[in-house]
Amino acid sequence: MIGGGTGAFIGAIHRFAALGDGMIELVAGAFSSDPAVSAESGRNLFIDPSRVYDSYREMLEKEAALPEDLRMQFVSIVTPNFAHFEPAMLALEHGFHVLLEKPMTLNSREAIELAEKVKSTGLLLGLTHTYTGYPMVKQARQMVKEGKLGQLRKIYVHYHQGWLSRLSESEGNKQASWRTDPKKSGKCGAMGDIGTHAFNLAEYISGLEVKAINAMLNTVVDGRKLDDDGMVMLQFSEGVSGILTATQVAAGEENDLRIHIYGEDGGLEWHQMEPNTLIYKPLEGPAQIYRAGNGYLGAAASQNARTPGGHPEGYLEAFANIYRNFAMAVSARLNNEAYDDSIFDFPGVEDGVRGMAFIDHVVKSSESNEKWIPFRVEI
Amino acid sequence: MIGGGTGAFIGAIHRFAALGDGMIELVAGAFSSDPAVSAESGRNLFIDPSRVYDSYREMLEKEAALPEDLRMQFVSIVTPNFAHFEPAMLALEHGFHVLLEKPMTLNSREAIELAEKVKSTGLLLGLTHTYTGYPMVKQARQMVKEGKLGQLRKIYVHYHQGWLSRLSESEGNKQASWRTDPKKSGKCGAMGDIGTHAFNLAEYISGLEVKAINAMLNTVVDGRKLDDDGMVMLQFSEGVSGILTATQVAAGEENDLRIHIYGEDGGLEWHQMEPNTLIYKPLEGPAQIYRAGNGYLGAAASQNARTPGGHPEGYLEAFANIYRNFAMAVSARLNNEAYDDSIFDFPGVEDGVRGMAFIDHVVKSSESNEKWIPFRVEI
Amino acid sequence: MIGGGTGAFIGAIHRFAALGDGMIELVAGAFSSDPAVSAESGRNLFIDPSRVYDSYREMLEKEAALPEDLRMQFVSIVTPNFAHFEPAMLALEHGFHVLLEKPMTLNSREAIELAEKVKSTGLLLGLTHTYTGYPMVKQARQMVKEGKLGQLRKIYVHYHQGWLSRLSESEGNKQASWRTDPKKSGKCGAMGDIGTHAFNLAEYISGLEVKAINAMLNTVVDGRKLDDDGMVMLQFSEGVSGILTATQVAAGEENDLRIHIYGEDGGLEWHQMEPNTLIYKPLEGPAQIYRAGNGYLGAAASQNARTPGGHPEGYLEAFANIYRNFAMAVSARLNNEAYDDSIFDFPGVEDGVRGMAFIDHVVKSSESNEKWIPFRVEI
Amino acid sequence: MIGGGTGAFIGAIHRFAALGDGMIELVAGAFSSDPAVSAESGRNLFIDPSRVYDSYREMLEKEAALPEDLRMQFVSIVTPNFAHFEPAMLALEHGFHVLLEKPMTLNSREAIELAEKVKSTGLLLGLTHTYTGYPMVKQARQMVKEGKLGQLRKIYVHYHQGWLSRLSESEGNKQASWRTDPKKSGKCGAMGDIGTHAFNLAEYISGLEVKAINAMLNTVVDGRKLDDDGMVMLQFSEGVSGILTATQVAAGEENDLRIHIYGEDGGLEWHQMEPNTLIYKPLEGPAQIYRAGNGYLGAAASQNARTPGGHPEGYLEAFANIYRNFAMAVSARLNNEAYDDSIFDFPGVEDGVRGMAFIDHVVKSSESNEKWIPFRVEI
Repeated sequence: MIGGGTGAFIGAIHRFAALGDGMIELVAGAFSSDPAVSAESGRNLFIDPSRVYDSYREMLEKEAALPEDLRMQFVSIVTPNFAHFEPAMLALEHGFHVLLEKPMTLNSREAIELAEKVKSTGLLLGLTHTYTGYPMVKQARQMVKEGKLGQLRKIYVHYHQGWLSRLSESEGNKQASWRTDPKKSGKCGAMGDIGTHAFNLAEYISGLEVKAINAMLNTVVDGRKLDDDGMVMLQFSEGVSGILTATQVAAGEENDLRIHIYGEDGGLEWHQMEPNTLIYKPLEGPAQIYRAGNGYLGAAASQNARTPGGHPEGYLEAFANIYRNFAMAVSARLNNEAYDDSIFDFPGVEDGVRGMAFIDHVVKSSESNEKWIPFRVEI
Repeated sequence: MIGGGTGAFIGAIHRFAALGDGMIELVAGAFSSDPAVSAESGRNLFIDPSRVYDSYREMLEKEAALPEDLRMQFVSIVTPNFAHFEPAMLALEHGFHVLLEKPMTLNSREAIELAEKVKSTGLLLGLTHTYTGYPMVKQARQMVKEGKLGQLRKIYVHYHQGWLSRLSESEGNKQASWRTDPKKSGKCGAMGDIGTHAFNLAEYISGLEVKAINAMLNTVVDGRKLDDDGMVMLQFSEGVSGILTATQVAAGEENDLRIHIYGEDGGLEWHQMEPNTLIYKPLEGPAQIYRAGNGYLGAAASQNARTPGGHPEGYLEAFANIYRNFAMAVSARLNNEAYDDSIFDFPGVEDGVRGMAFIDHVVKSSESNEKWIPFRVEI
Repeated sequence: MIGGGTGAFIGAIHRFAALGDGMIELVAGAFSSDPAVSAESGRNLFIDPSRVYDSYREMLEKEAALPEDLRMQFVSIVTPNFAHFEPAMLALEHGFHVLLEKPMTLNSREAIELAEKVKSTGLLLGLTHTYTGYPMVKQARQMVKEGKLGQLRKIYVHYHQGWLSRLSESEGNKQASWRTDPKKSGKCGAMGDIGTHAFNLAEYISGLEVKAINAMLNTVVDGRKLDDDGMVMLQFSEGVSGILTATQVAAGEENDLRIHIYGEDGGLEWHQMEPNTLIYKPLEGPAQIYRAGNGYLGAAASQNARTPGGHPEGYLEAFANIYRNFAMAVSARLNNEAYDDSIFDFPGVEDGVRGMAFIDHVVKSSESNEKWIPFRVEI
Repeated sequence: MIGGGTGAFIGAIHRFAALGDGMIELVAGAFSSDPAVSAESGRNLFIDPSRVYDSYREMLEKEAALPEDLRMQFVSIVTPNFAHFEPAMLALEHGFHVLLEKPMTLNSREAIELAEKVKSTGLLLGLTHTYTGYPMVKQARQMVKEGKLGQLRKIYVHYHQGWLSRLSESEGNKQASWRTDPKKSGKCGAMGDIGTHAFNLAEYISGLEVKAINAMLNTVVDGRKLDDDGMVMLQFSEGVSGILTATQVAAGEENDLRIHIYGEDGGLEWHQMEPNTLIYKPLEGPAQIYRAGNGYLGAAASQNARTPGGHPEGYLEAFANIYRNFAMAVSARLNNEAYDDSIFDFPGVEDGVRGMAFIDHVVKSSESNEKWIPFRVEI
């Protein structure tokens, strides 16, 4: 693991997600750019001190030098955005598969370079767009694919938080500080941090691609350096249109990610904060409440859950699905085995490149007087 | 009453709303352009046959000729959009106050003309933007006014229905037929029919005015003559921005009108389909569930409800509030009495003009490559 | 109308419910035991002063003496419990159909006497057990009847309010005063006031009869003269068992009446505070959200609603259904016509007798050390 | 770990719960009574084969013989009810702390014996009454303790499932088979399996003790050997009364555990299937939606959560809290350190004894004609 030392919120999340299913062991780490913090973190995590490193560079070199059956089998990178690209490139260069926090890089150029490296090395790269790890999101995707909605027509997705309603970055809030700092976060604030999740979710469930956007970014809180709010009209492939809004100044909201998707024969509705429920609304007849853990669900939803109906799973299990499915892919690669990546899927380098392109296009559209700009990704 | 004869859905709605509070009596009518239907409707409604008329023109003339204490005191017009302007003008010219279905007219020119007539006659004109009649909508407006949200920042409003998911107008659905016919409905379909409600609701609760829009209208169902779907980015006064979406092709949705409004100190959320609940989300502390009929509500919510907490009121009571409040205004005028129109308010001619302007601007923006067009109403 | 003078909460409710559908006109009243209040109420309601009476006795005598086509066609009695029996008997004796507030009488003896009078006169008696007037309650009943749940197994019904959490009757709360006074309310407090509604609802939806009970009544608030809380285990016909709880000291609850009913093939769930929704839970497959106003509903639900899906109806419309259906029955009687009382049903004298018997049996069981006492009604 | 071999549902649950927080390592196991299955399970779990044992007896003896710093530090027992007592006793006798599945034993006699052994050895025993591990349950308990509800009055708790609506034990359903077999499950079916959870939850949140019960057990499905349904009236200490229902034949229900608790100043409501929400209903003022992960929560809720507001935690995290808190207690014991067991609490031997007593008393009451039987536990 690179990053995620003692005190880092996201590190503990990753570890909980990684360890619960018993497929992954945490064997080595460069947990901080500060060697002392890294060492202490390693102690707290009961890791063999010889494999707690002062820097990720050191870790990658030394681990690569270990015999194959002793060295770590993939690297998880949980640092802030600005520190994604270099360790990821280096890890790939040293032959390690990489599981990476989103957004993939600081900008599209890095994203494309990384994608090319993945291609050239043939290694795996996973991206923790957590929300596609939820069983009922996978169920939604499968139902769309199976045609339960008929030809799609509309997609509404919003991701609303309220935690940046004040200028918290000036009050010592660490999370707020780096996420609103263009040097650490990139050229987008809210739209990069959470808008990319919404974008990824919409494309994931619908199976469509965004083709044109009409965007507005706002910096609502005085003194903030990046956008904390934005709205995007979307044109998808197949003539589908929609709306994506992302804001971190919706005072009183926690983590309100929702999607409504409609086709000619029905609609689907999913809310991240009650993730075990998926509402299916056929054009005729009563709406139906699909619930995680039940026998009537498809294979993807069933295989990405651990508990029977009524025993709620949450964010950490969605996260764990990404880790587990990535580990299955790594394991299949190591053992030269097949596995069903339509069921045990995880976001990858293509999602990362598209996410970075989304940020680029939103910024460009927001600064333009053109109503619509085409959305193009070259990869 | 003009229109609303036997079999007309909206006529029965209006009568239920008008009669329940015991302040209004239905004494005369021209219920249909077909005199036979009008006569039969009058019989079904137990109205004195001498006051059931063959045409609205006849009714207005004959009623105006009656002695003051015998003639009707106001006219309710419940015809389709294309038949709003003429009877309303004529009623005003004959000295009658008018309660009118929305949208006010077929186009902005008529709207402005009607507004000028209202001004010159000094008579009252009410408009049945039903949704602002709900107690919890009035509570929301009062809370915004009292500063519970602080300076406003964002408004999201959507109005999603699914009943036009198929080309129902070609299958003999009467409602679908006139609402999708530009001659009867005007230049907008969904955006005029329901988008104007959403627009009115947003301005009503926030107390703000739309200043610029960036709109897209779609005709999703092949063969339809008007838009059945649309999305609008909004800039309000005071730097507030927002989104309005209206669609009638969200398969599986009934009448899903919702609004979220956020300020620097908190947010509010209201859903028309569960109208007795208003969620207040302060920036700090737990969200609060404001419920109709309770002692802690403000005067506007309290005075526009009939039942104690937990006895749900609905659409017809919201409608009844418009009738009752309009009747109170008429009565106050007749008796030269004062009444508190901040509590017993109803939508009026200004809402009507703004609604028609909204339609105009949305169409204009949708056809334009300009990203934003200013929203201007001259009245 | 007997009772319901100016200031009486329930009078306005009854009038709203009675008048909206345009089938009923309020033509006469004895609105209060105080003639001055009755007269003033009549004025406020625009009633011909010659038909505003000083007492119900006077009204019944004088109206009965009017020619048939001028006299009132039925009497609505909206007085507190202790003043139900005498006016109802007198009205029947004078040949008037009667619509009566629940619970029907002060005790079972009166109830049976009234039932016999109804039988001997052949007149109609309706009872305002409002909650069975809701469309989705009728839908539930129809689904049970059609076997959607299979053989029934369990019924859970609760009716929880919080408004008597304090000794409000000592603080001048009029509603609290008479409802907690055994002379005005009868031998039961909460169990009579709201428990009887829950009992009626359970029998109505299930089509079953209570056969034995095991009850506990509590007076939670010090100084109160009647029970304000109670719990009852129930054995129904066909081997079904269940629970009924009724309380008015559930601090913070408004009017939380809910029922869950299960059979071998599925369950149903209905909440009075969101009355337009009925959840159907088949044994296999996703739960389904039945919503009022939609085409897939049965005849009873469809014919007892006024608005299309998504336009919420509430308590007053449920109440209006009882008035309208009663008026249809009266009208059918007057015109010697048929009408479908499986669709246009209303609670009647049998419900009243069973309700009073429920009160008797609960009190008896509560005072007994016997676990179960049989529930027997002789009529 | 004892039990929980490959294929055993509950074993994987325990491991996920145990491992995620990085405080616990799975080092040894006797995963099945079948040595081959145990061995295979050990391999799948990457456990040192020398510490995968053929029987729990062998494990306890051999582990106890290891040097202190190498041997396992506590035992987790995840076998069916009938196989709780013996391994637990043996583990304690060999000096191991024990974390045990509920219900604690097969009967009260065993429970008391185990309790005495815990007392005499001074070792720790934790019990996986999972539901008290939820942050919002802990919040509820703290709010009651702090007097937010005032003097308590009523407790309603229900636990409704539908999965035993058919005679699944005759169709090869393993879970159904042992849970409905008196030899493996004990003298109660549904009331032991899930009623004890409801009982534990009610006592945990309220801080009260059940003093008398009035119960009815039913075997609804023909051919079943144990109760699959039951209802219990409860009298708690301090004059509080309530209802507990538990059923496994509520067709269509998943895992519907809910509690409503009322005091003179307000109420609380919690549902297991949406566990991150706790509704607080003050006597005056709007209800409040307490949500997990927010700053306004008390210490117990805050310290038993891993994610910020809006990132839902679920059943596995509640379970993990029990493991983590038990591990903290073990660790505190090992290191002779203090820790705050009002925050990092877990259910223990007393809960186990009371749970077994609950089963005994319910069976006794159900068979008795006495209305109320006193609830007495001798420990």
